[in-house]
Amino acid sequence: MASMAAFIAVVAPNSLHSISNPLRPQLPARLRRALPPPVPVPVPFAIGKGRSTALRRAASCSLIEPDGGTLVDLVAREGPAREALRRDAARCPQIKLSRIDLEWVHVLSEGWASPLCGFMREAEFLQTLHFNCLRLGDGSIANMSVPIVLAIDDAQKRAIGDRRRIALVDARDKPVAILSDIEIYKHNKEERIARTWGTTAPGLPYVEEAITNAGNWLIGGDLEVIERIKYNDGLDKYRLSPAELREEFSRRNADAVFAFQLRNPVHNGHALLMTDTRRCLLEMGYKNPILLLHPLGGYTKADDVPLHWRMKQHEKVLEDGVLNPETTVVAIFPSPMHYAGPTEVQWHAKSRINAGANFYIVGRDPAGMSHPIEKRDLYDADHGKKVLSMAPGLERLNILPFKVAAYDKKQKKMAFFDPSRHQDFLFISGTKMRTLAKNRENPPDGFMCPGGWDVLVEYYDSVAPQGANKFREAVPA
Amino acid sequence: MASMAAFIAVVAPNSLHSISNPLRPQLPARLRRALPPPVPVPVPFAIGKGRSTALRRAASCSLIEPDGGTLVDLVAREGPAREALRRDAARCPQIKLSRIDLEWVHVLSEGWASPLCGFMREAEFLQTLHFNCLRLGDGSIANMSVPIVLAIDDAQKRAIGDRRRIALVDARDKPVAILSDIEIYKHNKEERIARTWGTTAPGLPYVEEAITNAGNWLIGGDLEVIERIKYNDGLDKYRLSPAELREEFSRRNADAVFAFQLRNPVHNGHALLMTDTRRCLLEMGYKNPILLLHPLGGYTKADDVPLHWRMKQHEKVLEDGVLNPETTVVAIFPSPMHYAGPTEVQWHAKSRINAGANFYIVGRDPAGMSHPIEKRDLYDADHGKKVLSMAPGLERLNILPFKVAAYDKKQKKMAFFDPSRHQDFLFISGTKMRTLAKNRENPPDGFMCPGGWDVLVEYYDSVAPQGANKFREAVPA
Repeated sequence: MASMAAFIAVVAPNSLHSISNPLRPQLPARLRRALPPPVPVPVPFAIGKGRSTALRRAASCSLIEPDGGTLVDLVAREGPAREALRRDAARCPQIKLSRIDLEWVHVLSEGWASPLCGFMREAEFLQTLHFNCLRLGDGSIANMSVPIVLAIDDAQKRAIGDRRRIALVDARDKPVAILSDIEIYKHNKEERIARTWGTTAPGLPYVEEAITNAGNWLIGGDLEVIERIKYNDGLDKYRLSPAELREEFSRRNADAVFAFQLRNPVHNGHALLMTDTRRCLLEMGYKNPILLLHPLGGYTKADDVPLHWRMKQHEKVLEDGVLNPETTVVAIFPSPMHYAGPTEVQWHAKSRINAGANFYIVGRDPAGMSHPIEKRDLYDADHGKKVLSMAPGLERLNILPFKVAAYDKKQKKMAFFDPSRHQDFLFISGTKMRTLAKNRENPPDGFMCPGGWDVLVEYYDSVAPQGANKFREAVPA
Repeated sequence: MASMAAFIAVVAPNSLHSISNPLRPQLPARLRRALPPPVPVPVPFAIGKGRSTALRRAASCSLIEPDGGTLVDLVAREGPAREALRRDAARCPQIKLSRIDLEWVHVLSEGWASPLCGFMREAEFLQTLHFNCLRLGDGSIANMSVPIVLAIDDAQKRAIGDRRRIALVDARDKPVAILSDIEIYKHNKEERIARTWGTTAPGLPYVEEAITNAGNWLIGGDLEVIERIKYNDGLDKYRLSPAELREEFSRRNADAVFAFQLRNPVHNGHALLMTDTRRCLLEMGYKNPILLLHPLGGYTKADDVPLHWRMKQHEKVLEDGVLNPETTVVAIFPSPMHYAGPTEVQWHAKSRINAGANFYIVGRDPAGMSHPIEKRDLYDADHGKKVLSMAPGLERLNILPFKVAAYDKKQKKMAFFDPSRHQDFLFISGTKMRTLAKNRENPPDGFMCPGGWDVLVEYYDSVAPQGANKFREAVPA
């Protein structure tokens, strides 16, 4: 059965030309020397096809271990424990959570950030800012690149006084969680922003939404969540926890799980890449690689397509048979989006290890955006995959760089870009796609399944100002 | 013989009250759990007192290993190899080094940055910016927090073309080194600054001196230095390489080496701390702890006391018997200064491991400065020691936090601050010390040895504008 060692060995020149080579062999010689030998991914020789509990357990063992060895679960069990927590919350000083804070409570509660057990205390915050990883008690290292912190202001700090335990409440003052053994420390916003984004330029979406007006203190502690976080927006069925995803992968007898993080509509180029990745994993000896198609469900910036429209579009893509539902799990990743490029892509990858993925597909400029005030991309488009391939704590994860797909005008479909006949290819950028959809124009045949495209057009119609359809925007070349 | 494990064990409450407790026991409980068990520092049971080559070698083995296991030495051997390199340099495209670039060549050439073998290529640069450490070929990690990079501009990049080997020349066009197997990559100054300093505010001294006007490309490669870097300023005798320092510590039969980094004049508070540290190390069972008093000799900001005045002052301190020359090695650390607080203090500590130090004294706000545009310190005064205690690759180093010394008006000498009789203590800040020296006033008796103080007064006299001595500056309280 293929292990990562085998995977690396297989990637001799041209032997896997249908997907990109993993990054390692593409790095300069000295860096290759500086990288550790690949760590074999534990995969059992054969996985039973039956679905008895015993076999499920056996299959479950074959998935990659969560960071720290145990998946963190901070949700109180139904019954006396939960009721005690609820009563306790009523007696504690209360801190109201913003929408983004609540999303982080969600993330923490289900163990996406395992082994983190609550909002960061200062030691964890500093390790995240300086090292993008946390040292664990046994001396091992877990990747953690994005600060998961809760800000409070001076008045809230005063109200807490010397209490060691506080309640976190939602927008309607309903208790959500208890934070205990708390530590309050300074929120140096400038330093947090500079070290996380590599810039302090005004206009970073997450910064403006969640940091600029936040309090000057951070409060860390151990989190206990009263009940599972729900949004009641019709999409909770997609919000599978890492434990549920692992259960699902085991139920399907997955012997490899490859994760695809996205926050945009799926087009046939994405689909090609995902299908092709599965084909290659099969060629490598895996018997049943399962795709985790994992759109980000937390905060996104104003001009991204909102979650429920994206989910509608993803549903159409599956309905239209572009992706095989038998080998695809679609679920929502509850994290908010930082748009912090190479720093954030590590978080996107690390959290998927906790959900059982041992392969991670990384694109060009992951989690990137335009520089907020200069006319250039904020990050070098290759830094994301480079940083990911070198990140401490991600050694166990197989990184699959995204091969560039474009519209092949000869074949009239999305295909992997072939530089030797570059004139045959049309690159359809996100901006171009959005403009076409806004104008109710169709993209070239084969760019996206028609059902999916209709959803996009419907979305842009829904947000267009009255009468806007009289004017057509110029479609960029 | 004391190992680090023993050291940690010894630090029970009040058992080592004469120096600060090491940081670990002061951290919050969760962080302590998150830190690895201390790694024993290899110290042999007994070190021979003889000075034969064989014994020197044995003693040498007792010093802490350099990062990566071998001390890097990039200086060509005298003879045909050096001459070949010199001829080679004449045929290569030439890049002129700034003073700071030359200081980095010096640093690299002697292995202070071991295992780094030249200016950073992109993979090393990215690891430094994001993780403050480098992954080595065997999977282990070496700390590396400050980018050691060489910038070139568009014209220089064009001139290099596709050559794989370039010559580095000094201000007088004399070839200094060859950089081979080069890699040229983008110099994203904003990102470099933000991730290194945690701010992009204008006015950071190193940034203004070495980055703002530097080229938009960085060039990395393997460095071969033609001959040892000398400055011919009368101070080269103090510029001991890590190998020479190790030789000296072995010659003195050191069984512990504690390093004290500084860039300011030494006062009796420093001396008290250093003497007291030695006393404590003796109490812990070390037979001959040696102090490495290690002033930084590279670039410093304009209002710091220049190196040759500082060295003159340090000489007086030793002459006056404030520190014991038998157990003190004074040498110059050739690195330029970043003033990058918690990021830079890791570099200051890591480089001293390479020079054989297994104990590192860390002060309040190490490598810190005022925020360049806001009225506050740039860094939290405690972050330096916290970050240092958690830094990947520094696990082998024993961190000794600086105990606060102040002028005890009752005892008329510098003493460790006792908060129970705080009214007896006078804190003499750097600003106050400078103002007193500028005014030719004497500090309180016992603050600094008179010979050392005279040097300071002489320095400020030498830089005072004509007639300035008519006006006395107000001494801050």
